[in-house]
Amino acid sequence: MSKVLIIGAGGVGRVVTQKCASLPEVFSEIMLASRTVSKCEVIAKEVGNGRVQTAQVDADNVPELVALIKSFEPQLVINVALPYQDLTIMDACLETGVHYLDTANYEPKDEAKFEYSWQWAYQDRFKEKGITAVLGCGFDPGVTSIFTARAAKHHFDEIHYLDIVDCNGGDHGKAFATNFNPEINIREITQKGRYWENGQWIETEPHEIRKELTYPNIGSRSSYLIYHEELESLVKNFPTIKRARFWMTFGDEYLTHLRVIQNIGMARIDPVIYKGVEIVPLQFLKEVLPDPGDLGENYVGETSIGCRIQGIKDGKEKTYYIWNNCSHQTAYDETGAQGVSYTTGVPAMIGAKMVLSGEWQGAGVFNVEEFNPDPFLEDLGKYGLPWHESHDIDLEL
Amino acid sequence: MSKVLIIGAGGVGRVVTQKCASLPEVFSEIMLASRTVSKCEVIAKEVGNGRVQTAQVDADNVPELVALIKSFEPQLVINVALPYQDLTIMDACLETGVHYLDTANYEPKDEAKFEYSWQWAYQDRFKEKGITAVLGCGFDPGVTSIFTARAAKHHFDEIHYLDIVDCNGGDHGKAFATNFNPEINIREITQKGRYWENGQWIETEPHEIRKELTYPNIGSRSSYLIYHEELESLVKNFPTIKRARFWMTFGDEYLTHLRVIQNIGMARIDPVIYKGVEIVPLQFLKEVLPDPGDLGENYVGETSIGCRIQGIKDGKEKTYYIWNNCSHQTAYDETGAQGVSYTTGVPAMIGAKMVLSGEWQGAGVFNVEEFNPDPFLEDLGKYGLPWHESHDIDLEL
Repeated sequence: MSKVLIIGAGGVGRVVTQKCASLPEVFSEIMLASRTVSKCEVIAKEVGNGRVQTAQVDADNVPELVALIKSFEPQLVINVALPYQDLTIMDACLETGVHYLDTANYEPKDEAKFEYSWQWAYQDRFKEKGITAVLGCGFDPGVTSIFTARAAKHHFDEIHYLDIVDCNGGDHGKAFATNFNPEINIREITQKGRYWENGQWIETEPHEIRKELTYPNIGSRSSYLIYHEELESLVKNFPTIKRARFWMTFGDEYLTHLRVIQNIGMARIDPVIYKGVEIVPLQFLKEVLPDPGDLGENYVGETSIGCRIQGIKDGKEKTYYIWNNCSHQTAYDETGAQGVSYTTGVPAMIGAKMVLSGEWQGAGVFNVEEFNPDPFLEDLGKYGLPWHESHDIDLEL
Repeated sequence: MSKVLIIGAGGVGRVVTQKCASLPEVFSEIMLASRTVSKCEVIAKEVGNGRVQTAQVDADNVPELVALIKSFEPQLVINVALPYQDLTIMDACLETGVHYLDTANYEPKDEAKFEYSWQWAYQDRFKEKGITAVLGCGFDPGVTSIFTARAAKHHFDEIHYLDIVDCNGGDHGKAFATNFNPEINIREITQKGRYWENGQWIETEPHEIRKELTYPNIGSRSSYLIYHEELESLVKNFPTIKRARFWMTFGDEYLTHLRVIQNIGMARIDPVIYKGVEIVPLQFLKEVLPDPGDLGENYVGETSIGCRIQGIKDGKEKTYYIWNNCSHQTAYDETGAQGVSYTTGVPAMIGAKMVLSGEWQGAGVFNVEEFNPDPFLEDLGKYGLPWHESHDIDLEL
């Protein structure tokens, strides 16, 4: 019987809340908190199964977070707020001795810099306190890292080549919209590409490298090499990897929109003073773009995310592909959120379940591939994200 | 010996100020005023010939305008501020009995509506007061209307078809920038197309109608039918016109940028509340786009704007083309402003000269084609905008 505090009432928060609320034997008490308590109340009412308490909290404010944690006394905090807020929430967990789990690495607000350094620096403090921090337990990072851990545990003696392939084959019917927080999404996608090869990082221009890849049940899609945060921990935790890359599909129109957003200065993350107020253009753009939470209703098609791996097993070269496909419409029918929120929220709930059930344990800061992948993957299909694997196929890479 | 008050210290204000300052026999005293007096001071210093006074004024505020006019006692106000401010400046001229001249019709801030109705409604009051209001005395509207007046006076008994063709064949080297105030420019260009045919206005989708037209010294350019304000007064003042259209050139990249700006919501002119402040997305976009005033230095190429006219002279069909080409670089070398500001500012100065010299006179509100075109066109080449005409050529229309 365990209490969980969920922070963040966007699309992912909605999915996590619903999934936790449907498992009273694991999550005996649930609180959902965010800056805007009315968003929590809507979620609690619509998908909380009558079991979800709500609270207002400013996740930038450690004393506020500490006060809320002390009053509710959860065993674990699930952080699905903004990546800027990872450190303040970790600070509050440290102060109160409560386990921590998130789905995206910390980013400083004023710099588009994606790396684990800030959060890994909490290692000793979490160890001393005897509590667990689980970093990056969404889909990617998250399931992609656990897929890799499964490959390493069961199918390879050495992983040599890892390609994470992320296709959103869905259509939301809007001229332009991002699938999660536009500010975070555009920061991530407009940065330079980067991949790991022979012991070093190689940088590319944004979207410089492109391949046509075929995705199950979707078909061929233009896929672009971008940097994605799980690459950093995976090459550290699986040192036999010679090359690790991340591919994401983008349509031509999407890229045109991104290019223009940059050209006109609306991707800037430095503030301009306007009407006496500091305004970050990218944050203002978020205000006028469609809310990703509103895309669900008319979203058709599927996402397909997985790992394509090549390496050695029993002295022989082999290839392996492990993936999940998720239908936007099915996700929406179940939770009122589209597939990108669903594929992030379900793994967060399962990660929380792993910690609370003791399947995943340890004092310190962990990336998910450091834990046993088997019980997690056993749950993954059961709670809505069935996965598949193929051996010895053409990886197209 | 006459005093002139210039309101507005953008690129056009700079050109008008410099041109007036170089004609002390016409403009004996000059004052340049704007909301930001430091912009006036820079212009006065750089191109004012030691003859330009400056002042701070909020052109939205009639009492402030009246006070300034009463203290400086000009014979004429040249309004090169924002189109939103036409009516307040006209009100102040009425109250003080001073002539008025502008280069663009009034637009309400909250509606992209281009028509003369608001300003024509001042007709009786200007008449009673015995003062002159000259509307639209830039290049287009302005010179294009005077070109048409010349055609009607000297080359046609009846004008039947009028096509105003506006090509900016220049290259400023930026991914995207507008040539004048981006807010006004984008409002104008994203609206529906409209043209006059057989006694009625016909509306088109934005950029629905396109032709390849050849411009002197530039070549062939994709030209799009858009609505432009002088069409309204020209079909009223030349009732033999069966069809009147306006064509503007746009590159594919420019149109792509415009399309995306609309798709992402940044062309909206209704306010959103952000950080407790009312922000109009298009006005905020203006803050992050390049300042049109900064384009001059690297701007190469020419503008070419003119009228292609078909009609009857002495019982015979004839065609006629009258145009000006203006080099961005030459304009910049002379004034520090690019060609689009130059082609607007020079005619404003000449219009003011026409009023002050008595070549153009009358009590009431006038569009420029209602005055005698000859003395204006005699000056136009002399002050930097030489024009050319061809008879009986293929108009491509």
